[in-house]
Amino acid sequence: MLPEVLAVYVGLLGESGNNPASTHAGGLRALSHLDDAKRMISRCLDCSVDEIVFTSGGTESINLALLGSAAAIGRRPKRALATTGEHDAVIETMKALSEKYDFDVDFVAVTHEGVVDRNALRSALEEAPCGIASFIVVSNETGAVNDVSTLTSLVRQYSPEAIIHGDIVQVCGKMPFSFRRSGLDLASLSGHKFGAPKGTGVLLKRKNSPLSPIVYGGGQQKNLRSGTENVPGAYALALALQSHVMRMDEQREHVASLRSLFLRSIDALRIPRVVISPDGASPYVLSIAFPGIRGETLLNALSEENIYISTGSACGSKRAGENHVLSAMGHDKETILSAVRISFAPTQSTDDVEHLVRRIAELYDRYAMHGKRRRGTRG
Amino acid sequence: MLPEVLAVYVGLLGESGNNPASTHAGGLRALSHLDDAKRMISRCLDCSVDEIVFTSGGTESINLALLGSAAAIGRRPKRALATTGEHDAVIETMKALSEKYDFDVDFVAVTHEGVVDRNALRSALEEAPCGIASFIVVSNETGAVNDVSTLTSLVRQYSPEAIIHGDIVQVCGKMPFSFRRSGLDLASLSGHKFGAPKGTGVLLKRKNSPLSPIVYGGGQQKNLRSGTENVPGAYALALALQSHVMRMDEQREHVASLRSLFLRSIDALRIPRVVISPDGASPYVLSIAFPGIRGETLLNALSEENIYISTGSACGSKRAGENHVLSAMGHDKETILSAVRISFAPTQSTDDVEHLVRRIAELYDRYAMHGKRRRGTRG
Repeated sequence: MLPEVLAVYVGLLGESGNNPASTHAGGLRALSHLDDAKRMISRCLDCSVDEIVFTSGGTESINLALLGSAAAIGRRPKRALATTGEHDAVIETMKALSEKYDFDVDFVAVTHEGVVDRNALRSALEEAPCGIASFIVVSNETGAVNDVSTLTSLVRQYSPEAIIHGDIVQVCGKMPFSFRRSGLDLASLSGHKFGAPKGTGVLLKRKNSPLSPIVYGGGQQKNLRSGTENVPGAYALALALQSHVMRMDEQREHVASLRSLFLRSIDALRIPRVVISPDGASPYVLSIAFPGIRGETLLNALSEENIYISTGSACGSKRAGENHVLSAMGHDKETILSAVRISFAPTQSTDDVEHLVRRIAELYDRYAMHGKRRRGTRG
Repeated sequence: MLPEVLAVYVGLLGESGNNPASTHAGGLRALSHLDDAKRMISRCLDCSVDEIVFTSGGTESINLALLGSAAAIGRRPKRALATTGEHDAVIETMKALSEKYDFDVDFVAVTHEGVVDRNALRSALEEAPCGIASFIVVSNETGAVNDVSTLTSLVRQYSPEAIIHGDIVQVCGKMPFSFRRSGLDLASLSGHKFGAPKGTGVLLKRKNSPLSPIVYGGGQQKNLRSGTENVPGAYALALALQSHVMRMDEQREHVASLRSLFLRSIDALRIPRVVISPDGASPYVLSIAFPGIRGETLLNALSEENIYISTGSACGSKRAGENHVLSAMGHDKETILSAVRISFAPTQSTDDVEHLVRRIAELYDRYAMHGKRRRGTRG
């Protein structure tokens, strides 16, 4: 968590006994914190304060968006489109729509660059109109960036009434985003991805987009999400988002320079690598394979030195050698087994990156199966 | 939040970037915190560590329990029973079961004392077998205590296969509770009711009780609740529960003495009152009406002096004069309009209570509609 956010959050926890539904002064104070949080978020994401629903995180936001739209689908076609590059939360919820809610679900291909294949999307839309569409805007696996307004325009060309959801978990605080201009009806984000506490999230919902709740109770948040609002968490989320948005350009530049330093140094040391993340990807995440050494081996060895990387999105990382996003991009099992995902962050320094590269070089020499780094002109 | 819990929570937030699904050392440390939290909870509530599912709060736990059981109902009858004394989260979820999931739902009456009317329950069970039953163990409105093992035995006598859920939100940390001996299959609790951060909760689920998830995604928590676990929140919840359970007897005695001091002082000052909470109720909450003065008037006037009471459970308190629990107990509209709910807490002192009574006396004299406090023998 960002230190300045943590300080404010702790202050609010001290007085957080108050429920914003209470009509006493404590309740009204809590309500006003919630309103302040909405105003901050609305400035950061270019949405209206009425379009903000607080949730417990990205997964809940995505489920509310997709299951809630399906329950309110009305006369729209019971057909839903997503892509093969989605996060598990979208993939599994789409499967539930198909298995339990009688929807036809199609997963549109992504290209080798990890973005939505527009021809495949066009074909899927020509086949039959859809009622729900969902796109990941920045891939959590590769950082590949989809041009969201192009995708929403394309969907509306064929299915003007479709409810379109965007997974913007990897976007918030990392690149400019305008909900108003995105063409999306719904967008899901997760607080802990940008320095807010775990257990916080938001669903943005355009005013006229139909949505049913997925949990029932006290009718909070215009009955879209029952349950006492987590006021300190919501406020901390807004504050963290604002902190990142304020410094977005400078942070992005710094992170991009770390990422290119990393790649330059890897190449300078002649460590064989396959960069999986495409050109133009978000600099915050790099998917890269080091052929000859398993990603898992690298992860475990680095972990002993308190350097934490992953072999893919943590949510699914327990099944070794499986990665639905990298598979969908057309990578073979060998590449996937040797792939790792490295996150770059504004708090890291060039020293950190150089240290990481040195360690990878040593580990490569120790563990790589097919011999050594390329030398001289053989490289 | 309890200061000792807040301190540990803040420490964990400092290192909470770690996802327990990650296989690096940071992830394993997060996983071990989660396991520690489960062990603490299992000791406090006499359940097994395998029976604990972390959620975002009481409302989510209740929805997962009821909707998740309904989706896994199998060959059990699609009939659900609850009582008229339930919290909105149960009432509204039961209505959803009826309207959207094709269940027959019956609400069994509570007595004037606010506990489940056993004859009414027996009649409802004799009428037809039920697949799901749900009981609030301690009323959030009145503190009325249901004897949960008697109720579960009664249900099993008629519907041995019923899935039985208990709302134990007002129980945890306040009175002894054994999940093992309760006869319940599922039990819902909320962290912020006992000094854990908002946005934390638990569903206890007996091993063989069938349950489907209500959100889909990364398959965390044995696929019962997808979404990155809120490790700092889960650990803080466990720690807060443990703190209260350790001091339960002494805290309960103190709170009970505050409650009886309050009632004695009110009577000593001859302020007319109707105690709505029954004998034997939890001392932590007192439902009481002061005929002649509206609850709302009292609440607003006390609020100006930073004394926060409510006119009923905050979740539904925005509709003046309505209170489904007090109505179900047979109270008339006049009593409900003049009713307030006062929470007593271990951190309060006798001075606090005496100050509150003095203020109520002054406000009564100033605002009460039908004249003055009883004097002399007219009392």
